[in-house]
Amino acid sequence: MTSSTPKSAVLIASGGMDSAVTAYELRARGSEVFLLSFDYGQRHRVELDHLMQVAERLDVPHETVDLSGLGRLLSGSALTDTSVAVPDGHYSDQSMRSTVVPNRNMIMLSIAAGVAVSRGADILAFGAHAGDHPIYPDCRPAFFEQLGKVIQAGNDGYLAPGFRLEAPFLYLTKADIARRGHELGVPFELTWSCYKGGTVQCGTCGTCVERKEAFALAGVADPTEYADLDKESSR
Amino acid sequence: MTSSTPKSAVLIASGGMDSAVTAYELRARGSEVFLLSFDYGQRHRVELDHLMQVAERLDVPHETVDLSGLGRLLSGSALTDTSVAVPDGHYSDQSMRSTVVPNRNMIMLSIAAGVAVSRGADILAFGAHAGDHPIYPDCRPAFFEQLGKVIQAGNDGYLAPGFRLEAPFLYLTKADIARRGHELGVPFELTWSCYKGGTVQCGTCGTCVERKEAFALAGVADPTEYADLDKESSR
Repeated sequence: MTSSTPKSAVLIASGGMDSAVTAYELRARGSEVFLLSFDYGQRHRVELDHLMQVAERLDVPHETVDLSGLGRLLSGSALTDTSVAVPDGHYSDQSMRSTVVPNRNMIMLSIAAGVAVSRGADILAFGAHAGDHPIYPDCRPAFFEQLGKVIQAGNDGYLAPGFRLEAPFLYLTKADIARRGHELGVPFELTWSCYKGGTVQCGTCGTCVERKEAFALAGVADPTEYADLDKESSR
Repeated sequence: MTSSTPKSAVLIASGGMDSAVTAYELRARGSEVFLLSFDYGQRHRVELDHLMQVAERLDVPHETVDLSGLGRLLSGSALTDTSVAVPDGHYSDQSMRSTVVPNRNMIMLSIAAGVAVSRGADILAFGAHAGDHPIYPDCRPAFFEQLGKVIQAGNDGYLAPGFRLEAPFLYLTKADIARRGHELGVPFELTWSCYKGGTVQCGTCGTCVERKEAFALAGVADPTEYADLDKESSR
């Protein structure tokens, strides 16, 4: 990881804690960081405002790509289709399959790879972790491994020297992310996980439950205000 | 290729002759065809109007994805950056490297793969050919082979049964495409190749030169009006 040459990373980022900790981790490893987020018609697009706050705190550039027209074409997901309810329950429940947006991460990472080529960045990063693997195939190591190969093939002769993909938490848990974020001083209070949108995180959807659990397992105080008034369960 | 089950294809399409012939080819092979095009800030976005005419003639659905905000982030290409001139010359010249839009085809194909999952389509298609290979790494067989693997990995459990990629002309030439299109009755006069945009195709940019050459080599009449008044050279 260490090198005398400064590294430059393009990180696809939501407004959630995984993205924030990944950004801080890349910085800690000596990279400049460029945050790229996406409006894909998600009902929780409030996350983009939260990412902006994280970007300001970390003092790194941030751009949002407008893919809002895609929502209609990638229909049927609870995240983009208001006729499909966001399920409550645990993040790894089968019911969470309704939150899959078809090929979402490949779309985001493809665009980010193009941005990396354009900027001459030598790292393309994202914050997937082991807890994402059961439901989201586009967060699994097998996907990430293939992704590196197709980006190399599709941009042969155009990538920055030493270009590589990084997913620092790919084999770790969200509790590990909470712990590492705490060490790095990540402002968790600025991050947004809830899939339902609104102004306060619900505390009951899959990703809120997972967020609470991560802080609890890590033994890190959870600064989040949840709408279910059940904050004690997150400690 | 033959099967008792009707096939359904999502084809990424420009307004050019390769896309049009690929659409007709898929139809001839017994597929329903859905055309997906992209406004990525290309100066020749007039091609999108031409594709719409082809879609109407073929009587198939057509959607354009608005990626126009990406032009700024994928800067430096002659196709999207008006400060970079579109080069004249032959399509395979090194000068054509300036027309590469970073990771363009992977971005389009990623979105199209998501649309295919959403629609339950079992074919993802594009019209790359051997003449694209020298300059555009994201048109080469090595890219296409890896692309299939990453789409399978990233959408494990969500793809239509028998899902596959198709690029019918990947190992053929543009002259072969002209010949096949002639057999299939493709309305070449509705297609647009010119990278420079405008209202009449210039006849001198790399893709116009390649278009003329393809018709000439195939022995197929070129119905195109070129601005350089040099139509005889295209016969």
